[in-house]
Amino acid sequence: MSDISAFDSLVSAFCCLPGVGAKSAQRMALHLIERDRQGGSVLSEALQHALEKIGKCKLCRNLSEGEHCEVCVDPHRDKSLICVVENPADVFAIEQSGTYRGLYFVLMGYLSPLDGIGPDEIGLEAFKNRIIEEEIKEVILATNPTVEGEATAFYITKLVGLQGIQISRIAHGVPIGGELEYVDSNTLAHALSGRRLITK
Amino acid sequence: MSDISAFDSLVSAFCCLPGVGAKSAQRMALHLIERDRQGGSVLSEALQHALEKIGKCKLCRNLSEGEHCEVCVDPHRDKSLICVVENPADVFAIEQSGTYRGLYFVLMGYLSPLDGIGPDEIGLEAFKNRIIEEEIKEVILATNPTVEGEATAFYITKLVGLQGIQISRIAHGVPIGGELEYVDSNTLAHALSGRRLITK
Repeated sequence: MSDISAFDSLVSAFCCLPGVGAKSAQRMALHLIERDRQGGSVLSEALQHALEKIGKCKLCRNLSEGEHCEVCVDPHRDKSLICVVENPADVFAIEQSGTYRGLYFVLMGYLSPLDGIGPDEIGLEAFKNRIIEEEIKEVILATNPTVEGEATAFYITKLVGLQGIQISRIAHGVPIGGELEYVDSNTLAHALSGRRLITK
Repeated sequence: MSDISAFDSLVSAFCCLPGVGAKSAQRMALHLIERDRQGGSVLSEALQHALEKIGKCKLCRNLSEGEHCEVCVDPHRDKSLICVVENPADVFAIEQSGTYRGLYFVLMGYLSPLDGIGPDEIGLEAFKNRIIEEEIKEVILATNPTVEGEATAFYITKLVGLQGIQISRIAHGVPIGGELEYVDSNTLAHALSGRRLITK
């Protein structure tokens, strides 16, 4: 090999990215060095900058450059509504749907006692204080429909229920554009049990 | 969005990588910031370092940290044999096969007159001088079996032929482990026309 250490260490650094194996990492490194040095230097700086600047919002635990994130300080958001999600990626997804105007609370994970992740690790104490202090009227549980996500939602229901605050869970069912024929039976069972009356 | 500019610019910087779209870029950025800050900072530094250090070998045009690459200065390589490839990635692939011990010449592209890429742009003048000066005995053409790669190989054959040096082309045919049934007809036609006698 003609291009040793600097190249090899770049390839192994790329391997730490999700979904990137040895071959893709090599392709990325070659692309940046051969064809897009400008892009490579932009990437290096953006990464350095992001790692320095981005921390957690003190109120909602989402990623934020300041002490409080943009959603928490936005005066136009509905402060009586709070949506609980597992990860910042979920916040992006909900924001992209463009229909939600309330606040968020990001657990940064889910309850998993076997891995030592209890209510404190996912910030539920802070969450409880927040909903009392800020006069939240409704908590929307948008954790993932997995065993862990459901357990976490159940725990939060118990926790919040004591405060007399309305709690809801996002709907689970057949995705829009999906065909019944190809939807798995578990989802279909949820769609049936969660059906809504359209006439009385 | 709670995490604006620094995060957004990181996501768009990741989008310049080959095979990475908006969703993957977001996933990569979130992964590094949420779960692997150490890896992110290693990546940023490795990239900076590689961009500073890696240039081209003056002899073979492959990527190299010094003036000459490791292959060109290695006293154990067979200096009478030179293999012409299109890209540094091809050098990696051949080195990984572990059977070649000669030198390389990396075109960094292929002849493409319509795009303004002539013999000079792919270093063929330097290549011609090198094979005369260094007493090369055989030139192995390992450009890709595409229209451009074949045209480039044909051009080099003409160029080198005048010097009375032996020229060969790597074999094209059914890949090892492949099944005839699933091999495309063009490859099969090549495999037939390139057949070798096993008894006389």
